[in-house]
Amino acid sequence: MAAKYKVTYFPIMGLGEPIRFLLAYMGEDFEDCRVKWGEWPDIKPNTPWGKMPILEIEGKAGVTQSQAVTRFLARQAGLCGDGAWEDLKIDEIVSVVDELRGELAKYYYERDEERKASLKEPVLTQTVPFYMKKINTLIQENKGYLANGKFSWADVFFAAISDHMSNMNGSDITADYPQAKALRERVYAIPKIKAWVDKRPKDVPMF
Amino acid sequence: MAAKYKVTYFPIMGLGEPIRFLLAYMGEDFEDCRVKWGEWPDIKPNTPWGKMPILEIEGKAGVTQSQAVTRFLARQAGLCGDGAWEDLKIDEIVSVVDELRGELAKYYYERDEERKASLKEPVLTQTVPFYMKKINTLIQENKGYLANGKFSWADVFFAAISDHMSNMNGSDITADYPQAKALRERVYAIPKIKAWVDKRPKDVPMF
Repeated sequence: MAAKYKVTYFPIMGLGEPIRFLLAYMGEDFEDCRVKWGEWPDIKPNTPWGKMPILEIEGKAGVTQSQAVTRFLARQAGLCGDGAWEDLKIDEIVSVVDELRGELAKYYYERDEERKASLKEPVLTQTVPFYMKKINTLIQENKGYLANGKFSWADVFFAAISDHMSNMNGSDITADYPQAKALRERVYAIPKIKAWVDKRPKDVPMF
Repeated sequence: MAAKYKVTYFPIMGLGEPIRFLLAYMGEDFEDCRVKWGEWPDIKPNTPWGKMPILEIEGKAGVTQSQAVTRFLARQAGLCGDGAWEDLKIDEIVSVVDELRGELAKYYYERDEERKASLKEPVLTQTVPFYMKKINTLIQENKGYLANGKFSWADVFFAAISDHMSNMNGSDITADYPQAKALRERVYAIPKIKAWVDKRPKDVPMF
């Protein structure tokens, strides 16, 4: 029987991994479709918005946008907040974490070598510590979690995207931030997520 | 009596305007705090994440991230979807619209004149039409709205951000897209939003 869910993304963790983590956490089998870098230009025009990840559910037209899709799955997984204010605090930190990922990506995927070199120092020695220090403090204030003093999909999103950020950072992005490091490890230790991490394919980097 | 809500943002529509639109729609009086461009570097270190807009509610610590804050207000305004799938479709298109805004901003706010010149043509003649054509079709398929065939906060978000996008685009971004143009006009015609638009301060551009 075909899996209920199909995730289409590049052959890396990136923005696909929070979706894969949520599906693993939910115990859902899913088709893990990894588009080869060289094949993307041919596939792109046939996608809803020219972007991945894309989630298809029972063959329905795919939906995109990593945060939107992860939030949708989180609702089914019972990992949203209790009420509007808690959801706001979750949504805020997810967007902040994704903003940090975006800043790293701006540097890491820059194709102009000169520009890339000029971005490296400010991104790695200013932007990353700025965010990670605040994230670390936030986790301390929230009993080991990112929002509302309890486990939510924000923690899954952060853990799932942290290794991709570490790849772009050139080293473990949580290394100097013990609260963030412990949170990542706590999420990775959830049995269904651990089972996914143990079996997931290795990243095939773009370059 | 002090207003319940305070919105802090640059003296432009930008990412603050969807929040201001939602508050206006809800009939909420709010303190519209506009930070002068030159004052921002001094204020930035004292903000939660170094970014605006910031929403403060009854003096509580401010929350950031335009989409998160607008979604929160939308829930109180009754402008969310009916169930998880409808909310996903709303969240998806809001993120897509914000992605288009981001692509325009990458060009418009680029400080390197040479790079800005090289971005202009692809952004204005490829990226903008790519998104706007699809957005126009989506509105046609959804009975004049962006998601689920009915009015939602996605429509308010799009209308509120469209004039800022037009500013960056150099001309009305909906000009060639009648469905998008009509949707913007429909939102602007909502009496409480019209009242806000009629009284809101003019943008003070960064340059």
